[in-house]
Amino acid sequence: MSATAFVPGHATGFFSPVHDDDPTNSGARGAGITLSDGISVTVASGDGVFFDGDEVEIEAVDRVLGALRVDARVTAETELPIGCGFGVSGGVALGTALAANEAFDRGLSMNELVTIAHGADVQAGTGLGDAVAQARGGVPIRLEPGGPNEGHLDGISAMSSVEYVAFGPVRTATVLAEETAHLTDVGRACLSMLVAEPTLPTLMRASRRFAREAGMVTPSAREAIEAVSDAGGSAAPVSIGNAVVAIDGGLTDAGYDANQCTISRAGAHLR
Amino acid sequence: MSATAFVPGHATGFFSPVHDDDPTNSGARGAGITLSDGISVTVASGDGVFFDGDEVEIEAVDRVLGALRVDARVTAETELPIGCGFGVSGGVALGTALAANEAFDRGLSMNELVTIAHGADVQAGTGLGDAVAQARGGVPIRLEPGGPNEGHLDGISAMSSVEYVAFGPVRTATVLAEETAHLTDVGRACLSMLVAEPTLPTLMRASRRFAREAGMVTPSAREAIEAVSDAGGSAAPVSIGNAVVAIDGGLTDAGYDANQCTISRAGAHLR
Repeated sequence: MSATAFVPGHATGFFSPVHDDDPTNSGARGAGITLSDGISVTVASGDGVFFDGDEVEIEAVDRVLGALRVDARVTAETELPIGCGFGVSGGVALGTALAANEAFDRGLSMNELVTIAHGADVQAGTGLGDAVAQARGGVPIRLEPGGPNEGHLDGISAMSSVEYVAFGPVRTATVLAEETAHLTDVGRACLSMLVAEPTLPTLMRASRRFAREAGMVTPSAREAIEAVSDAGGSAAPVSIGNAVVAIDGGLTDAGYDANQCTISRAGAHLR
Repeated sequence: MSATAFVPGHATGFFSPVHDDDPTNSGARGAGITLSDGISVTVASGDGVFFDGDEVEIEAVDRVLGALRVDARVTAETELPIGCGFGVSGGVALGTALAANEAFDRGLSMNELVTIAHGADVQAGTGLGDAVAQARGGVPIRLEPGGPNEGHLDGISAMSSVEYVAFGPVRTATVLAEETAHLTDVGRACLSMLVAEPTLPTLMRASRRFAREAGMVTPSAREAIEAVSDAGGSAAPVSIGNAVVAIDGGLTDAGYDANQCTISRAGAHLR
């Protein structure tokens, strides 16, 4: 009784939060890039939640296990920076759902599993749409918020190598608990830009605009984005994060020691 | 000006056709397995459509190029058997859409490209839902027919190696032009089975039931399915095809010289 799932990372470019009393209707419109660097989650007989070797408590994981009526040991690992806006929380929740469903023969469909993970991430206050994007892979555009039955996705058709650096964690729950009316307006404007021209360069531009107008970009991230631009490349901040993603070798060209991966071809899947 | 896209194969298990005057609303409910063996399509300056080295005419490809207003050379290759129900036609249409959009900077979104490919495949009479399934990857369940804006997908959470053999081509257009009311009823019953228990074993059972009740299984396919079952494995016919897929090594165990691949983790994507 053991199964392992892989979930790509998700670097949110911009978002527009939507709150609803039903967590599966809550979430965010927005867009981002899923990454071939991601989160690996194994669910097996036993107990405890282990993350990169340490025993931890993750509310979204407990909620997923509760919804699936599974008592198990969850072991998660990632090469992504934690608490920096790469969707690690949504990824652990979604990976737990897929692996627990497989290991314990729960027989749920992908939409059901994504709905459970999305609702758990929203209720825990750790994410608003990462799980839905991570289930899809590629470069998802979230046209309507919520789980797979309520939301509506599109995507950018693109393939590229990607680099990223993180300068330190940010408390997502704190950001998401604050007044978000301004974020909603700025995020909507960015989504309109992207829908009018759904390409990777437009996503990068819209993400920079979001960070600027929402006042979210940290000095370290701003400096990196400018350095990449000066070196002739294209970078953007990771929303709710003190981190930067660049297309192709933009960060290396600007002298940063960056992590390298690609846009994830696949969404979340069993190993 | 050149771009290449990869589209996974799609072995349809069962389907329930839906006809509508608008081709993007037409299609089929149903389910199948996408395969890591697939179709590679390159679009570049020039003219002519080439398939596995031969110059050919493919109506769905012409329709896609027309919708994108692109004059180009299309070069497609596949290791899949052609005309045997593996979605080669839908795959060439979808691969052409993705590669032409990239090579000629058309700036269309994934949903727009899938809609164009789906409509072209339906109008050419060569497919009813392969392109939509191939865009998703994994093990798609088509709950509602049509393109990405009209249809509704779910999926089975599963990963497995897959084997297949083909015993010869079938003319899809001939099958789809015939009276399909009976197919619709049988396909609906199979979908109900699968929605009640969305697992890979249930998909295989529902596919065998569809072939039996729709009277579509050829003697060669029936013999192979029985041989795999006798050897302790699980196989199913490919709908509108004279071919068989098996989970894991079922066909090899039964003595067949089978092609080997896996469930495709990824949907259609640029290379």
